[in-house]
Amino acid sequence: MALVAPVTVHKIQRDTVAETPDLLAVEEPLEIRLGFGPVDDRQQRSLAVTMRTPGHDEELAFGFLVTEGIIQQPADIVSCRHCVQDATKQGNVLRVELNPGVVVDWQRLERHTFTSSSCGLCGKATIEAVQALTPGPIVSSFHLSTDQLLALPDQVRDAQRAFAYTGGLHAAALFDEAGRLLLVREDIGRHNALDKVIGAAFWSRWLPLTQYGILLSGRIGVELVQKSWMVGVPLLAAVGAPSSLAVEMAQEAGMTLIGFLRDERFNLYTSPERINRPVAIV
Amino acid sequence: MALVAPVTVHKIQRDTVAETPDLLAVEEPLEIRLGFGPVDDRQQRSLAVTMRTPGHDEELAFGFLVTEGIIQQPADIVSCRHCVQDATKQGNVLRVELNPGVVVDWQRLERHTFTSSSCGLCGKATIEAVQALTPGPIVSSFHLSTDQLLALPDQVRDAQRAFAYTGGLHAAALFDEAGRLLLVREDIGRHNALDKVIGAAFWSRWLPLTQYGILLSGRIGVELVQKSWMVGVPLLAAVGAPSSLAVEMAQEAGMTLIGFLRDERFNLYTSPERINRPVAIV
Repeated sequence: MALVAPVTVHKIQRDTVAETPDLLAVEEPLEIRLGFGPVDDRQQRSLAVTMRTPGHDEELAFGFLVTEGIIQQPADIVSCRHCVQDATKQGNVLRVELNPGVVVDWQRLERHTFTSSSCGLCGKATIEAVQALTPGPIVSSFHLSTDQLLALPDQVRDAQRAFAYTGGLHAAALFDEAGRLLLVREDIGRHNALDKVIGAAFWSRWLPLTQYGILLSGRIGVELVQKSWMVGVPLLAAVGAPSSLAVEMAQEAGMTLIGFLRDERFNLYTSPERINRPVAIV
Repeated sequence: MALVAPVTVHKIQRDTVAETPDLLAVEEPLEIRLGFGPVDDRQQRSLAVTMRTPGHDEELAFGFLVTEGIIQQPADIVSCRHCVQDATKQGNVLRVELNPGVVVDWQRLERHTFTSSSCGLCGKATIEAVQALTPGPIVSSFHLSTDQLLALPDQVRDAQRAFAYTGGLHAAALFDEAGRLLLVREDIGRHNALDKVIGAAFWSRWLPLTQYGILLSGRIGVELVQKSWMVGVPLLAAVGAPSSLAVEMAQEAGMTLIGFLRDERFNLYTSPERINRPVAIV
């Protein structure tokens, strides 16, 4: 499973053209199928298709299932394996066998989870729909110093295997209260990179992640806050900008949300008490 | 419909903290519902929910419907209006009434269009599924000079109303063979920004877009190439990196694909003949 693929490209500057070899971030579809029901009457059903960078597919599936509220613990999973269709199409369909005790609420999943609720369709309903699946606001003593935060982007960049070659991959990283990176995952999709990190932590039995922070390479949309809230992450930081709804949901979740973490600075949007301030507020 | 929302933020540099007002890109859910069937037995069905930046919602819906192969011409649409739920939830549900003659293939849409086909699930199948919905490779005499291309990103940046304030919005822009910008749309989601541009062009009866190019502010995943191919765009350029599958699909589509268009340079991945070269290849 390669993260990068070779290509020949014309590199053009104002006055020069050079035909040179280059590398691209790999993108391929992945279908996640669930095997479920009693052992003597197993059924399977397609849950989702996502465009992803191959590798860590099981973690991606676990992270997706956890953050959609479908599974809670490793014991909910009986097995997880790629379906082999033929020699050339190996590896793009993943079948996850769930414990017969796991009840899948397909109706909720089909009703566009997390975006609408009985009271209508708006940002507030989106937040309430997630809230209903969590134990409520995040309670955590996790905190970090400004210096530890500022050091994170360089650490993640050093650990990103493929970005440096392609410029085309998002990263998600898990770190602890000492500012140490524990996991870094890359993917063409930012949601997938986050699912892979959460899925890996899930499989290592680290959930809930109330003593960990997560750093994202891109911007923060509400779905990334949702995923983090579902597993109790108290601090979510990103190199890019958050959206209005991401900030609203982080507020409701009691999550510390940080954006524009780059060039020796950052913006702190919610729950600032988890950052040890360098000086008093000006 | 505001593109930006105010927020108070702690801006932190290594040694200073300042509490200041700032602006965020607005993100809200939008549900697209289709009204269809014979006039005396109208039904409606939810087609999709997307997280988007409010504004140009009708264009977003039209672009989505066109690029999913559901509608072909403005005459396919009878009406398009927001459903008003109550005073506070206005504007997040859009109902599109289709001409009774439009046949919606719900089965295809539910089968995760564009990612799987009867021959299996892989990048090649993804490309073939799109191919089946287009008239084939794009035939177009469209071409552009290197100087015209290099001038585009600054033009788009100047036209982006909200990015400068928030750093959080993607842009998609339509330009002609003279290098003139005709349309710019912004959205928190890059797919939505492209759908809005395509929807606006569709409603202006400019389709197929075989004499236009499109510039995107972000990276190019395969779904952006798919949308552009569906409306015949001969040249797709982006400030960011393309994926492996985006390049493969552009190759199959006969589309000129350009990445890393910034800082007076760009990479040319496919169909280079549409760019007037500054000098011979080194």
